[in-house]
Amino acid sequence: MSGIVLGDNQYGKAETHVVRVTRSGLQDEIKDLTVSVALAGDFAATHLTGDNSNVVPTDTQKNTVFAFARDGIDEIEDFGLRLARHFTGEFDAVERARVAIEEHPWDRIDGHAFVRAGSEKRLTTVTCTKQSAWVVGGLTDLVVLKSAGSEFWGYPRDRYTTLPETKDRILATAVTARWRYSSAEHDWGRSFTEARRLLLETFAKQRSLSLQQTLYAMGEAVLTARPEIVEIRMSMPNKHHFVVDLSPFGLNNENEVFYAADRPYGLIEGALVREHASDAGHAWE
Amino acid sequence: MSGIVLGDNQYGKAETHVVRVTRSGLQDEIKDLTVSVALAGDFAATHLTGDNSNVVPTDTQKNTVFAFARDGIDEIEDFGLRLARHFTGEFDAVERARVAIEEHPWDRIDGHAFVRAGSEKRLTTVTCTKQSAWVVGGLTDLVVLKSAGSEFWGYPRDRYTTLPETKDRILATAVTARWRYSSAEHDWGRSFTEARRLLLETFAKQRSLSLQQTLYAMGEAVLTARPEIVEIRMSMPNKHHFVVDLSPFGLNNENEVFYAADRPYGLIEGALVREHASDAGHAWE
Amino acid sequence: MSGIVLGDNQYGKAETHVVRVTRSGLQDEIKDLTVSVALAGDFAATHLTGDNSNVVPTDTQKNTVFAFARDGIDEIEDFGLRLARHFTGEFDAVERARVAIEEHPWDRIDGHAFVRAGSEKRLTTVTCTKQSAWVVGGLTDLVVLKSAGSEFWGYPRDRYTTLPETKDRILATAVTARWRYSSAEHDWGRSFTEARRLLLETFAKQRSLSLQQTLYAMGEAVLTARPEIVEIRMSMPNKHHFVVDLSPFGLNNENEVFYAADRPYGLIEGALVREHASDAGHAWE
Amino acid sequence: MSGIVLGDNQYGKAETHVVRVTRSGLQDEIKDLTVSVALAGDFAATHLTGDNSNVVPTDTQKNTVFAFARDGIDEIEDFGLRLARHFTGEFDAVERARVAIEEHPWDRIDGHAFVRAGSEKRLTTVTCTKQSAWVVGGLTDLVVLKSAGSEFWGYPRDRYTTLPETKDRILATAVTARWRYSSAEHDWGRSFTEARRLLLETFAKQRSLSLQQTLYAMGEAVLTARPEIVEIRMSMPNKHHFVVDLSPFGLNNENEVFYAADRPYGLIEGALVREHASDAGHAWE
Repeated sequence: MSGIVLGDNQYGKAETHVVRVTRSGLQDEIKDLTVSVALAGDFAATHLTGDNSNVVPTDTQKNTVFAFARDGIDEIEDFGLRLARHFTGEFDAVERARVAIEEHPWDRIDGHAFVRAGSEKRLTTVTCTKQSAWVVGGLTDLVVLKSAGSEFWGYPRDRYTTLPETKDRILATAVTARWRYSSAEHDWGRSFTEARRLLLETFAKQRSLSLQQTLYAMGEAVLTARPEIVEIRMSMPNKHHFVVDLSPFGLNNENEVFYAADRPYGLIEGALVREHASDAGHAWE
Repeated sequence: MSGIVLGDNQYGKAETHVVRVTRSGLQDEIKDLTVSVALAGDFAATHLTGDNSNVVPTDTQKNTVFAFARDGIDEIEDFGLRLARHFTGEFDAVERARVAIEEHPWDRIDGHAFVRAGSEKRLTTVTCTKQSAWVVGGLTDLVVLKSAGSEFWGYPRDRYTTLPETKDRILATAVTARWRYSSAEHDWGRSFTEARRLLLETFAKQRSLSLQQTLYAMGEAVLTARPEIVEIRMSMPNKHHFVVDLSPFGLNNENEVFYAADRPYGLIEGALVREHASDAGHAWE
Repeated sequence: MSGIVLGDNQYGKAETHVVRVTRSGLQDEIKDLTVSVALAGDFAATHLTGDNSNVVPTDTQKNTVFAFARDGIDEIEDFGLRLARHFTGEFDAVERARVAIEEHPWDRIDGHAFVRAGSEKRLTTVTCTKQSAWVVGGLTDLVVLKSAGSEFWGYPRDRYTTLPETKDRILATAVTARWRYSSAEHDWGRSFTEARRLLLETFAKQRSLSLQQTLYAMGEAVLTARPEIVEIRMSMPNKHHFVVDLSPFGLNNENEVFYAADRPYGLIEGALVREHASDAGHAWE
Repeated sequence: MSGIVLGDNQYGKAETHVVRVTRSGLQDEIKDLTVSVALAGDFAATHLTGDNSNVVPTDTQKNTVFAFARDGIDEIEDFGLRLARHFTGEFDAVERARVAIEEHPWDRIDGHAFVRAGSEKRLTTVTCTKQSAWVVGGLTDLVVLKSAGSEFWGYPRDRYTTLPETKDRILATAVTARWRYSSAEHDWGRSFTEARRLLLETFAKQRSLSLQQTLYAMGEAVLTARPEIVEIRMSMPNKHHFVVDLSPFGLNNENEVFYAADRPYGLIEGALVREHASDAGHAWE
């Protein structure tokens, strides 16, 4: 027992699913969020002796999410900041609060009816200490596909290489992108909309020699156009579409019929950072 | 052993994921389908003795899906008919072929790039015997929500009833609807678009006293407006949104803050049929 | 509107997750169930006018599941019968109640601690009308694999056939089996244990010429040995394990290295019935 | 463009599902693994210009997994080391290779037939640079439940606290544990078996005042008994089981009937480290 120390630890309530309706007569607004809270700080006692005098119950965290939703949610980055600052401000033992939010999109049918707009989700992760705050925005499950303009060749070959080179393949991926803001005060909605637009536009227009090149170009487009974003991290699985060999059936296949595979898949991950960016602090950890 | 007989049986290749790109220079088209084939017929021998002389391999079924995709997919109902008729026409032992297709939607970004349009899927189930064909169209995972205009009251109460009556609740569901066509030749694309529009429109505009009433009204709207559709079956989970009690925190909650629950959920299923409709035959089984 | 009639319909609360602990000092017992209720009967009014005077709320159904659990769960078939008979007995409008239960298995660590025993689940579906009761038992997600003793050859070949014949393949599947009992009173626990044992044992010992033959032999073993079971229905996906071609790397592969594919997969479904079995009634529908 | 730099990046083939059968006449052995490879190193060129001359294709990585499996898999830690060392040794540009493996358990039915032993998986993550190697072992989805011996009280209360204190609750979780070994050569099988046994045993026997205390005790038991393990990190969701209030039905509930909730859930994460442990290097990152 001696010689063993408690290392990094955190705890919180994960995936509180809150829906907030703002009513204004003819037209309602809805916000549909999954909120996860994680607190770090002076929690050695509960680990070592079961003394919970510093442990804000995760049930209380959930209640707080619902209570704060009553005053309106606005942009998820703002909601995350309110919550994270509350936990670090209210409880001495809480040295760091992280609030991660997924926003589920709805399209309007009419004033009081909505239809789910897709599986893509807007993300934020807000991290606050007693002194500082970091805001990361992002999106996930943005599924995109290029039917032309993608190549892959010039790679090293060894004993185990069988992949044929190609100057024309399908490129498909499900983008997860997270970007760090320079500060905790921005026009979050506009930043998100523009970052998303730049990611999509760059994916579409740039000829791709590798998924890495595409990832880099997408991140670069965001950093170039959005000065408030100082870093972007992306994860892009290569959702392989293999050309089906139809020659056994006496048929050619001019890159028209593809088998979409589930597993295994390539997974490309990369970050781009603005030189001289502010320190990332606790933004990502 | 004697006294035991083989009952209903079928087999086939499930979930062949085929993507078909139609190339025409400036603008590609894509079709993204998951195709499942199930064959029934004279298959007693393989069950009883392992004699496979009638068993079209599921691998062959998969190959056939890819080969047929080469000639273009067009509407999924047409593609299903071509495949199902092939299996019953080509193999004596195949008395009934069922082809079930899910179509995954994509929106265009530009001529050669696409973004996934949501989790909703268009469906068809085509069933052919050597003489006949039945076509069922449909959709699934159409997630909708009404923030107003939904009530639930007047239900029987017994010892176990605790639910409060409400004249104002959130109504949310994920619609699965399947509809049977009167024949195997229609303008499938237009029928689908209109049926979907009618389902959405009716969900939105009709005041709801129960999810059953909403389901019926949605089905009725489709049957009334689309003579080519003779029956519709719907499954609609009640995705409960519970009003959070904020009174312990000294806050009121005027139907604004909801907890979206996962399980348990209500599940409402119902069918509407046109009187004097043609016999459903093997359409659903 | 005229000329449209309400067809089959049912509704209920799905997936109420109840855990029942029976305490007896040194050693607790736990039962971990997911219970789904579906009621059919005189529910036209709510569909047509929103009159809910016959609609037992799904919330009440959930409450009833919890309340009935208090008196002990015993075998899931018994618990299903108690619940289904309650709904048909208590409410005039309920003509048919179906209760489907999944039981999640736990192994004991000690008197008060348990570890989840796997993903396999025991099933029952109990259906009651005001006069009769039908009990279906079963299991799902019983994943099994044969590394030898499986062949597949002698199948018809057409233009689209490329599959090589094999006298030695891996056979893997996830068994779902449901069996109908002759009446509503049996030693459910023993029947289940024996049926499961026979399914496993037959899968293991029988040389397989097709997955259909294996399915039939498994069902036949159950019907032969268990007179209380009059019908069995099985669904067995063929979880393909493909021999990896290592020859490009100068290596042979004597049926030792396999790629386990996710999709597409074969799907084999079949039923075996005892001749002169009692009528299935509402057991399956 | 100027002022933007490429940050951390890696890529590889994820989730290659390989099954290896070792044949020895009367009794086969199977190993069932999902293998994910991630390479980091000198990959700036492909990001910036699409020059792939350093990019070992993920397809080659997959081929390598299959080829290496032919020589036998043995313990997954060994297999991971062989693969990771191959990639760093074979390719100049690869500065760090990480191989993460999930092993799916099978129980034997007889010499050539197996049944899936549960959803729990054994894990390893092996990380190699050109000079060093780090091995992390572990497990995931070990679902456990205590029906007695768990309390939670003495926590701080604020405006949003409604949770009642309890001296008797159900404690259930799905353990993910990862532990770092002191070096790259150990009796992996024995270490795994013992670590798992200690985790289970401690969970069962220790009275719990908080899930954090239980987590710490479990980790401490492993570090105390297994000198080859120098650090352990655990993630344990609190799978809430709420006592159902049966009083509206005139029934008491002496901690016997529980509702098992899906979301939200508590999430407890913590690490324990041996003092003076060797540096973790790239083991976790």
